[in-house]
Amino acid sequence: MTPGRPVPPPLAKPLPDLTEDTTDYAETTAPGPRLAAAYGSTASDSGLVPLTVARRAPKDDDVEIAIEFCGVCHSDVHATRGEWGNPNYPLIPGHEIVGRVSRVGSAVDDFTPGDLVGVGCLVDSCRECDSCLDGLEQYCENGMTGTYGSKDRRNGDATTQGGYATSVVVDRRYVLHVPESLDPAAAAPLLCAGITTYSPLRHFDVEEGDVVGVVGLGGLGHMAVKLAKAMGAEVKVFTTSESKIAAARDLGADDVILSRDEAAMRAANRSIDVIIDTVAAPHDLNPYFRTLRVDGALFQLGLPSGDMPPVNPGALIRRRIAYAGSLIGGIAETQEMLDFCAEHGVTSDVEVVRADQLNEAYDRMVAGDVKYRFVLDTSTLGTPSERADA
Amino acid sequence: MTPGRPVPPPLAKPLPDLTEDTTDYAETTAPGPRLAAAYGSTASDSGLVPLTVARRAPKDDDVEIAIEFCGVCHSDVHATRGEWGNPNYPLIPGHEIVGRVSRVGSAVDDFTPGDLVGVGCLVDSCRECDSCLDGLEQYCENGMTGTYGSKDRRNGDATTQGGYATSVVVDRRYVLHVPESLDPAAAAPLLCAGITTYSPLRHFDVEEGDVVGVVGLGGLGHMAVKLAKAMGAEVKVFTTSESKIAAARDLGADDVILSRDEAAMRAANRSIDVIIDTVAAPHDLNPYFRTLRVDGALFQLGLPSGDMPPVNPGALIRRRIAYAGSLIGGIAETQEMLDFCAEHGVTSDVEVVRADQLNEAYDRMVAGDVKYRFVLDTSTLGTPSERADA
Repeated sequence: MTPGRPVPPPLAKPLPDLTEDTTDYAETTAPGPRLAAAYGSTASDSGLVPLTVARRAPKDDDVEIAIEFCGVCHSDVHATRGEWGNPNYPLIPGHEIVGRVSRVGSAVDDFTPGDLVGVGCLVDSCRECDSCLDGLEQYCENGMTGTYGSKDRRNGDATTQGGYATSVVVDRRYVLHVPESLDPAAAAPLLCAGITTYSPLRHFDVEEGDVVGVVGLGGLGHMAVKLAKAMGAEVKVFTTSESKIAAARDLGADDVILSRDEAAMRAANRSIDVIIDTVAAPHDLNPYFRTLRVDGALFQLGLPSGDMPPVNPGALIRRRIAYAGSLIGGIAETQEMLDFCAEHGVTSDVEVVRADQLNEAYDRMVAGDVKYRFVLDTSTLGTPSERADA
Repeated sequence: MTPGRPVPPPLAKPLPDLTEDTTDYAETTAPGPRLAAAYGSTASDSGLVPLTVARRAPKDDDVEIAIEFCGVCHSDVHATRGEWGNPNYPLIPGHEIVGRVSRVGSAVDDFTPGDLVGVGCLVDSCRECDSCLDGLEQYCENGMTGTYGSKDRRNGDATTQGGYATSVVVDRRYVLHVPESLDPAAAAPLLCAGITTYSPLRHFDVEEGDVVGVVGLGGLGHMAVKLAKAMGAEVKVFTTSESKIAAARDLGADDVILSRDEAAMRAANRSIDVIIDTVAAPHDLNPYFRTLRVDGALFQLGLPSGDMPPVNPGALIRRRIAYAGSLIGGIAETQEMLDFCAEHGVTSDVEVVRADQLNEAYDRMVAGDVKYRFVLDTSTLGTPSERADA
């Protein structure tokens, strides 16, 4: 595949030039830690630069993954630029990881070298609290360990480093099986954008006959449209921009509502069961509440940096509406989502980029100029230097 | 019972001097409409004054009720003073009605003269929309008919007039059976304050082992404490006032948290399953969200006239919390609530007042000086004049 070219999904099967496995597994089974080529930030204003990261030798429960693709999430921009607090630099972002198993620890029997696997937003959690025991590791009461920028408590409190790298080592409990029928580049964003929208749809038991609203048509929004359609729902997309009407319909939306058109908003009154709101800028939710039916819910998934306008409690009271949040999904649910996507041929619309295009990709993403997710081809990261930076 | 004296609930059985039935049913079966003595407002600044209201002769499906007690709800103050828009005056408030059936229409076979019955906040709905068919008449898509101040579409578009009156005529579908074991004065507030708090607790499936938080300790809040305890929950009351700690414990609260005590609020972090928020003034919900567990919910029941402070979406996202509203309850659920209260000996703590004390009661209620609900003894309304005012 040519980097920079959008992949038209869904792909019935991987493109031939993506699936050719060039990994020499005999070579990779040598013991010990390994250096990986990576891209990351060394300061809030450094941009993304080539780095080398040391990956631990697989422990008994570990899976080492030769990364093939890593999705580029908007969170990566905030994190590397220090917009969500000052991280420990250098920081290698990336939590939409797809690759093939290269080595496994002695206690791993559910993964074999060569398996197509994925890693999402978390690589560890306490495994003991109610949330972890309920399969809701993302809400771990002791704090989940993020795929990058987190303190790795079971590994000497090292800072975790993410998927803009040629390899990663992750405990088997947090590794997903990626069905071979999914295109690996287009599947990468499922690990964050996919599960983040799938989980609230499932939590609300969306099924055939339900009407789902989607606010915002970016990385998350376009996945919400595809997943809701695959669940059998009727989908209405809210957008501020007439230019997105055709794109929304191309993704499968049954209806597109211009949110600034008051008459159109009135006409949508009491017509929707659940809204997936993916907009991360402050915006007034009250007009959306009015489009919900009794017992409807609006799930907000994006976290704006500024205050949201006040919610009118009357809008919630008069129809027993819930305004809820939702954070990615648990590990078992993420596996369920991947299997669902394979069954229904759902992947992300992606534009594959080279490592040296990442800074431009960040700028374009901030400007909203992407349909709908950039994915890094890790074969363009080069080779690691002899000394680890991270 | 002496007006002005609080009734110590729960009462195992009605006080003898309340249950003595003085109605002459032979006399009341005479046909035709009837005048009722009432109290209501003739203008936003009139205060409550004696009025006479004409009640229709029972139609085939109607139940005529000789009202014994009517609870005094904070909504009555807003409505009669025109604080929620300008009503059609004269307006007779009251939607916490308990009395005995005096006459029934020809098609009524589930009520008999002499039955102890109740009427709550609604006296009609379309009976055809999805909400009505689901037993959620309070969310009727065509608009429920409120017990007072609503257009009565099945009765010549007359304005409905409420329960500060000696009688009322209501379609049998909206009349509740009040168990004889409940004290009728202390049961009256169940018809609004009771069902308004019962419904969200049931909607959330509160059961033994759950932890329920209650914000605000007025008419609704004190019912929420009693009902949640009766459901087997552990109850934590949030209050801004140290003076309410003892009162909350008297009602059965297991724990009382001063909401202005930051350390106490921190200590309550992630300890509550569902919060019933009964405060009708603008207040910051974010500190309460932090006390909720994963998948917790906060139900706001009061409708402030000003804007609420902004909700922090991160608080909802990080624990999949729902911020929801809820409006009274459906008719079947209201009956279920009354039966539940009889089974568990739950009634409201009331202070019974005479009609000529109503204006003072309003002022005291606005000042928060009531534990916890005023109830009008309708035997003090006098006799109707020969000409109807409303």
